[in-house]
Amino acid sequence: MSGYTPIRILPSEGIEVLDQTLLPHEERYLRLETVAAVAEAIRSLRVRGAPLLGVTGACGMAIAGEERGAGPEALAQAAAELRATRPTAVDLGAMIDEALAAAGEAGGEGERQAALWVFAERALARQRERDAALARHGRELPGLEGAVLTHCNTGGLATGGEGTALAVIAEAWRAGRIERCYATETRPLLQGARLTMWELGALGIPGTLLPDTAAASLIASGQVSAVITGADRIAANGDGANKVGTYGLAAVAARHGVPFYLAAPLSTFDANTPSGEAIPIEFRGEDEVGGFGDDRWSPDGGGVYNPAFDVTPAELIAGIVCESGVLRPPYGPAIAALTR
Amino acid sequence: MSGYTPIRILPSEGIEVLDQTLLPHEERYLRLETVAAVAEAIRSLRVRGAPLLGVTGACGMAIAGEERGAGPEALAQAAAELRATRPTAVDLGAMIDEALAAAGEAGGEGERQAALWVFAERALARQRERDAALARHGRELPGLEGAVLTHCNTGGLATGGEGTALAVIAEAWRAGRIERCYATETRPLLQGARLTMWELGALGIPGTLLPDTAAASLIASGQVSAVITGADRIAANGDGANKVGTYGLAAVAARHGVPFYLAAPLSTFDANTPSGEAIPIEFRGEDEVGGFGDDRWSPDGGGVYNPAFDVTPAELIAGIVCESGVLRPPYGPAIAALTR
Repeated sequence: MSGYTPIRILPSEGIEVLDQTLLPHEERYLRLETVAAVAEAIRSLRVRGAPLLGVTGACGMAIAGEERGAGPEALAQAAAELRATRPTAVDLGAMIDEALAAAGEAGGEGERQAALWVFAERALARQRERDAALARHGRELPGLEGAVLTHCNTGGLATGGEGTALAVIAEAWRAGRIERCYATETRPLLQGARLTMWELGALGIPGTLLPDTAAASLIASGQVSAVITGADRIAANGDGANKVGTYGLAAVAARHGVPFYLAAPLSTFDANTPSGEAIPIEFRGEDEVGGFGDDRWSPDGGGVYNPAFDVTPAELIAGIVCESGVLRPPYGPAIAALTR
Repeated sequence: MSGYTPIRILPSEGIEVLDQTLLPHEERYLRLETVAAVAEAIRSLRVRGAPLLGVTGACGMAIAGEERGAGPEALAQAAAELRATRPTAVDLGAMIDEALAAAGEAGGEGERQAALWVFAERALARQRERDAALARHGRELPGLEGAVLTHCNTGGLATGGEGTALAVIAEAWRAGRIERCYATETRPLLQGARLTMWELGALGIPGTLLPDTAAASLIASGQVSAVITGADRIAANGDGANKVGTYGLAAVAARHGVPFYLAAPLSTFDANTPSGEAIPIEFRGEDEVGGFGDDRWSPDGGGVYNPAFDVTPAELIAGIVCESGVLRPPYGPAIAALTR
C-alpha cells in the first residue's frame, strides 16, 4: 500500500522503528530488543503519534516478556517504565493495559510470551484496518478532485497504518480523483515541511510545499478543490480542535466555497465536551517561536503567543470522516449516535 | 522620537547605516565614505526598504561629490554605479535623479558638493515628515485600543523615518491608546520575527511574537482590537497587495468584526491598475520555503508555492492611511482624487 512503514514487528525478537527524528534527511530503522531501548525511542520522539505510540506500547510489552520473562511482576514493572515515557499519551497507556490483560489470560510463561506477541501484531493490524476504513469512506468526498490542501502531518508516521487525512488523500490519489497535494509548512514545529512532504514523496504523490502565509491566496486563486486535515478532539456539536492554523484555513475556504473536511478516528470524538469553547488549549513555550532547533532569528526576551491547537467551529466543516463513515451537519445527533 | 535610526548623515564626511543583515542579534553601524561602500551596503541588503533606499541613494550622490569631485561626468558615473545595485528599486533611481538635478542647478564644484549634502539631508527630513504625517492621521483610527496585530515589517528600518503601519502603532502607543503589539513571524523571510520584534523593543512597545498559524485563533479570541499592515501597491478600487499572509488576516478579522487597516505612502497608490486582479504577483524560489538560511528541514526536490504578495479585496479594508489622511470606503473616488 504505502511506500514506508514506521514500525515492523519481528516476533520473539523485537521491533524495528523508523527514527522520525532523522526525517526527512535520513531514513534509518532502529532495531529495539529491550524495554529500555523502546522507552528511549518513545521518550526521544523517535516514535511519535498517538495511535503509533499505542502500537509501540503493545510491542514494548511483548519485548518485556521476551527479555525479562513474562511473570506478573516483571510485566508490571515494564508497564510502569513504558507508561512513564509519555504520561499523558492516552493510547500508550490503554494499549499497555490491554497487553497486560492479554498476558493475564494465558497460562504458563511461554504462552504468556506468545500471547503478548500475538496481541502486538493484532494491535498493529487493527490500526491498519481502522486507517484503511477511514480512507475508503473519505475517498469519495465531494471536492476531492484536482488538488487538495492539507495542514500538519496526518500520515502513517503517526498511526502505524496509513494515517487519517493523508490516508484519504492517498486513496483519492490512487482512485485518480486528485493529482496533487499542497502541504503547509505548519509553523512552529514544521510537521508539514518535515514529515508530510516526506510521506507524499514516499507514496509517490506529487506534493507542493507552501508557507502557512500563502495558503489563503492559494485558496483564493481557485487552485484547491478541498481542504482536509486531521483533528485532535471533536466536541459533541462538531466543533473540532486541531493543529494551530487549521481554523484560518477553514475560514478562508468557507469564504471561497471550498469544502473543508476533518478526518479523525472515533477515539477523537468527545461527547462530554459540549462545544469548542470547552476544549482546553495547550499553550507552549517561547523556544518554538522565533527560531527552529538551535537557530534563533528573533530577539531574546520578547513574549510569544504559541497555542498548539485552535478550534474550527462546526459551521465551517463540510464533513467529518472516521472509520465508521462520513458525518454531515448537523453533527450533534450523528456524534451522539456514534459515541453512545 | 524612536529609539533607533537606520541612517545618520555626517555632512562632508559620509553616512552611518545600521547593518540590517546583523539584526536582531547585533546592532552595528557601518561608516560609509565611498560610492563603492554605499553600493556594497545596498547590494548586500545591509540597507533595505524602498523609501530608505531612496534616501541612501541621495546620500551616495553626496558622498560621490566629496570623494570624486562633483563634476558632471563623475556624478553621472556614480549615479550609474548606485542605480545598478538594485535596478528595480523605483525610489532609489528617482532620488538619484533628483540629486543630480539639485547638483546641476549649483555653480562651482564646492557649491555642487554642498548642494548634494543639503539635498541628502532634505530627502531624509522629507521622509521623516511623511512618516510622521501618516502616523498622526492613523493614530485616531477606530479600534486602535488595547492590542493590535501587525504583519511583516513596516517600521523605520524600511523608510528612514518611523515607517508606515508600525509608525501608526507607535503613535497610538505614545497616545496611550494601545498597550501591546502582536507581530506575526511572517514566513518565509521572517521579517516580523527578525525586524518588527527588534523595532518594538527599540521603541519600548510591549511586543508579542506569534507563528503565522496562530493569528486566526488570536483574532477569534477577542484579544486583538485591530489589524494594521503596510501595502506594496493599492489599486484604483482600493484592493491592496501586501506581504503574503495579509489576505488571510483580513479575512479572519472580517469574520470577527475586527477592523483591518492598510498604512501606505501616496506613492503606493496606482490609479492605472483598476483592481487587485490586475496586480502582478511575484513568485519566488524554492530555497525560501522548507528552510531558513542554511538550515533545511524539508526533503529536497518537492515543488513549492511561494508568492511574495497577496491581494486583500477592498471590501475587507476598513480604512487606508496615507500621509494625506485616512481614506474610507468606497475607495474609488478618494483614490482618484488623491492621484489625479
